[in-house]
Amino acid sequence: MSAPSKAAAYEKIGVIGAGAWGTSLALTAARAGRKVSLWAREPEVVEAIRKTGENGIFLPGIALPENITATGDLAEAVSGAGALLMVPPAQHLRSALSAVAAVAAKGTPLVVCAKGIERGTGKIVTEVIAEAAPGFEPAILSGPSFARDSAVGLPTAVTTAARMDIAERLQASLSHATFRPYASDDLVGVALGGAAKNVYAIATGIVDGMGLGESARAALLARSFAELTRLGIALGARSETLMGLSGLGDLVLTATSPTSRNFHFGQEVGRGRSIASLREPGKPLAEGVETAPALVTRAAAEKIELPIAETVANVLSGALPLDGAIVRLMTRPLKSE
Amino acid sequence: MSAPSKAAAYEKIGVIGAGAWGTSLALTAARAGRKVSLWAREPEVVEAIRKTGENGIFLPGIALPENITATGDLAEAVSGAGALLMVPPAQHLRSALSAVAAVAAKGTPLVVCAKGIERGTGKIVTEVIAEAAPGFEPAILSGPSFARDSAVGLPTAVTTAARMDIAERLQASLSHATFRPYASDDLVGVALGGAAKNVYAIATGIVDGMGLGESARAALLARSFAELTRLGIALGARSETLMGLSGLGDLVLTATSPTSRNFHFGQEVGRGRSIASLREPGKPLAEGVETAPALVTRAAAEKIELPIAETVANVLSGALPLDGAIVRLMTRPLKSE
Repeated sequence: MSAPSKAAAYEKIGVIGAGAWGTSLALTAARAGRKVSLWAREPEVVEAIRKTGENGIFLPGIALPENITATGDLAEAVSGAGALLMVPPAQHLRSALSAVAAVAAKGTPLVVCAKGIERGTGKIVTEVIAEAAPGFEPAILSGPSFARDSAVGLPTAVTTAARMDIAERLQASLSHATFRPYASDDLVGVALGGAAKNVYAIATGIVDGMGLGESARAALLARSFAELTRLGIALGARSETLMGLSGLGDLVLTATSPTSRNFHFGQEVGRGRSIASLREPGKPLAEGVETAPALVTRAAAEKIELPIAETVANVLSGALPLDGAIVRLMTRPLKSE
Repeated sequence: MSAPSKAAAYEKIGVIGAGAWGTSLALTAARAGRKVSLWAREPEVVEAIRKTGENGIFLPGIALPENITATGDLAEAVSGAGALLMVPPAQHLRSALSAVAAVAAKGTPLVVCAKGIERGTGKIVTEVIAEAAPGFEPAILSGPSFARDSAVGLPTAVTTAARMDIAERLQASLSHATFRPYASDDLVGVALGGAAKNVYAIATGIVDGMGLGESARAALLARSFAELTRLGIALGARSETLMGLSGLGDLVLTATSPTSRNFHFGQEVGRGRSIASLREPGKPLAEGVETAPALVTRAAAEKIELPIAETVANVLSGALPLDGAIVRLMTRPLKSE
């Protein structure tokens, strides 16, 4: 732990993506005293915020203060911003970063607030930033948080990871009474924790949906954390980071709350719903569905075995039948822990 | 991880204490094929099991097989047993151990299944065994488990900690299709994890009862685990143990489930109930109430700070007002993680 930060806040923050979390983060920055420009892909969202002072589509019922300006113009959104919060879904991160890199000032911190591993490449967030936005400062904001909880002022603590001086400026720029960012320079640990937790939340959701009880779910969560830690250490993450807010904290939230999309998705699978029947037109599936095979791909490249993530990936792809796979996971041969 | 165990099971297991967990463990041993003698302090429990084939007082509705013999005679219960499961409440462990040591064969493994730190002395389970039952083999059974879940056959995984050859014999003696013990020789880690989790479950229960939201609860749980790990490492526990079933697994179960007595107790405190009003005549308070000050005492002796456990101890003793204490914990000064 370092001493309390005296870093200077950025004057203006750009938020790229106006879903529930992007809007909630814009509100956080505004409450912390920043000027905020909030970019939305959908013209109707820009229109709604301008006219009604709230994002009725993605975060209804929450008034947005006047220091938030909504815009559909990316160049306008990034102009003059000291840091840009990137809030697209993980699988669209690369294209969003490329678009921002084309219009933003080189060297601006790009703070990824999406959680996931890129399907196909198995790349974590920091690697995607390096490839899609070279010359910009990589940063991540991650931790146990629900958009609405934070928006209504329930206490929320997250990690801002970047080069330490930048992480501390982000901390200073976003903190207010009920929103506490903690600075870290372990980008790999923060990126991995946020991504993997969605996969493990699907696993615990399945166990819950199958009615196997709370003890089984807790045991699986502990093993998930051990699995995540093995891969994290191999990738160069620090164990304190994995044990912290953005690792264990977020895993616990996501893997025990029915409010979590990934846990809920797992519950439905555990109850016997087919993956096909869980698809909703125009909506992506829960993030962990994409990240599960990507995580396994990446772990294989590092020669790390992830029995739980592999089981999730194989059950979701249809390669393994649900019952046998989960029972095998829960009744492994007796070994020392 | 070691290879699957080939250790020989004990022929007979004695279970000392016939509450819900003791009865459930007797059932586990019986299902694993052991002869079991189950000692109950209350004559009416012995009577009920003998007459009706179930423990209608503490584990109603669960039929006990014929290879379980109930007795009120301690010498009879321990006679011929290869290992003795000790299931009294943690604060009565010392006297129960002394009583058993006076009648059992020296060298018998005494497997403590209670979780807690001794009030007044700050001693962990292994230290209490060494003092109260010298010449016996110390062992612990701990992990995420609810008596009823395990009794109805929901999958349960626990840790048996002892000298490794003994831990493996215990594993062989208790395992069946839905009950999986994993062997460990880290007694300190297992003892501490089981004890501390009740204190942290009260903390997360308080946050939940105050309505601070799931994000805050998850953040507090991650910090609780970090706190537990700091003390564990100082006492000589291994971090893999703390991250395993008996540490993190049990913490997650206890600190997220309303079925957990300690979490529920915390919720009531968080909702504004006074400690005095939560006392029920003839029943002990939730275990963490006793262990909180004991944990702080022990940590102080090791020169380790435990802000969360200290807050719990101080709130429960009345030394700190609830609101201010919890808010301070959740909005600590901004530091690096």
